[in-house]
Amino acid sequence: MFKDSKLRTILKTISWRITATTTTVIIVYLFTGQIQTAIEVGLMEMVAKMLIYYFHERFWDNLKFGKIEVPSMVIWITGIPFAGKTTLGDMLAKEFEKDQRKFQRLDSHTVRALFPNVGFSKNEVNSHIKRVGHLASILEKNGIVAIASFVSPYCESRDFVRNLCTNFIEVHLESTPEFAKQFDDKGFFEKAFKGEIEDVPGVTADYEKSEMAELTFDMQKTTLEKVKKEVMKYVKEKY
Amino acid sequence: MFKDSKLRTILKTISWRITATTTTVIIVYLFTGQIQTAIEVGLMEMVAKMLIYYFHERFWDNLKFGKIEVPSMVIWITGIPFAGKTTLGDMLAKEFEKDQRKFQRLDSHTVRALFPNVGFSKNEVNSHIKRVGHLASILEKNGIVAIASFVSPYCESRDFVRNLCTNFIEVHLESTPEFAKQFDDKGFFEKAFKGEIEDVPGVTADYEKSEMAELTFDMQKTTLEKVKKEVMKYVKEKY
Repeated sequence: MFKDSKLRTILKTISWRITATTTTVIIVYLFTGQIQTAIEVGLMEMVAKMLIYYFHERFWDNLKFGKIEVPSMVIWITGIPFAGKTTLGDMLAKEFEKDQRKFQRLDSHTVRALFPNVGFSKNEVNSHIKRVGHLASILEKNGIVAIASFVSPYCESRDFVRNLCTNFIEVHLESTPEFAKQFDDKGFFEKAFKGEIEDVPGVTADYEKSEMAELTFDMQKTTLEKVKKEVMKYVKEKY
Repeated sequence: MFKDSKLRTILKTISWRITATTTTVIIVYLFTGQIQTAIEVGLMEMVAKMLIYYFHERFWDNLKFGKIEVPSMVIWITGIPFAGKTTLGDMLAKEFEKDQRKFQRLDSHTVRALFPNVGFSKNEVNSHIKRVGHLASILEKNGIVAIASFVSPYCESRDFVRNLCTNFIEVHLESTPEFAKQFDDKGFFEKAFKGEIEDVPGVTADYEKSEMAELTFDMQKTTLEKVKKEVMKYVKEKY
């Protein structure tokens, strides 16, 4: 919850007083033709009204009426490893920050780091994604934009999350292991190609493409900068 | 995020104008001794300033400066089944609602219903509690008061959650199966006493009392109404 600080109220009081007293002095001068009276009235008004205005502001800050919550949403970025999910999530977060919106980044790397025992079997991945989705939906209900970037390779858990949320935007960054490999500084795909690691979505494990994704981008034909713009355009049109 | 609605700004404009123009009329009368001039100035001021004030308000509503977030917290209610956790959580939620605070109830019944496959082994319970705690800590970081009621019988996971959070209040409702039984409309304890069900904390499974709990109440010697007051007193003193 946000409350106005006293300093904010004081600065707002001064900002208003300059605007308002200038108007008063002009009005009194127009009616009386006397510049001295106009200025005297202005000075007295300045002192009296700053005090009254300050308390009027504090009173209204405590009134809930008419403070409306801006609609929130869940932006769910999915795709094979190194498709650009985390980078896109961070780019979108910056846009929301510029708009002074509350947001929460949810990312495979940070969430998994907290829960090191989560495995990579289909069942474990699905439960993991469902739980993160539950978190995202609760954030959404509380007015916070959730920006999640997870491989989330199975339709089942992505659709479970969609059903929990009100405004759900699935953004699929479509890529191929051959293309994504160029961003892979860890030799992750090389090892998968050789069969040295299992459970790599797109190589040694499934990635199920969703027919329901609100936005799909072919990463071989576009750039993350363009994708970011498209997503923000969609967000602003819909919400 | 909250924004002022246009209706709020209009009502606030009128409320201020009545206050302010009355002051102006009095000031002009004091300086000129002419009641007619005072009223004419007042009327002109009313029209001109309502317009200016409205736009001044809209401008400030878009400024982030000085909008301060009220500190948030996680209230974690723990105890054996039927100790009164859910009821207390709901009672606390009502208090926060009265204070116009944003809060989120997290409850074993609703969260577990979403994840039916979570078991009751020590490992599974600990992971479940850690995940709910992660959710609570993210809510707290975003200014939402999390009110969680879970048996959460193990110190390990409760302390994990404490470390994730900034303002963590562990409320332990201390009870005994013999005493809690009277609130048990499902014959849960009877079955546990007979050894028919396993994993019942306090009977056929552990409940580890924490030495770190911020607040502990002996439910055999107090009432939930008194507990609620004590918790709210603690909250208001600390945050």
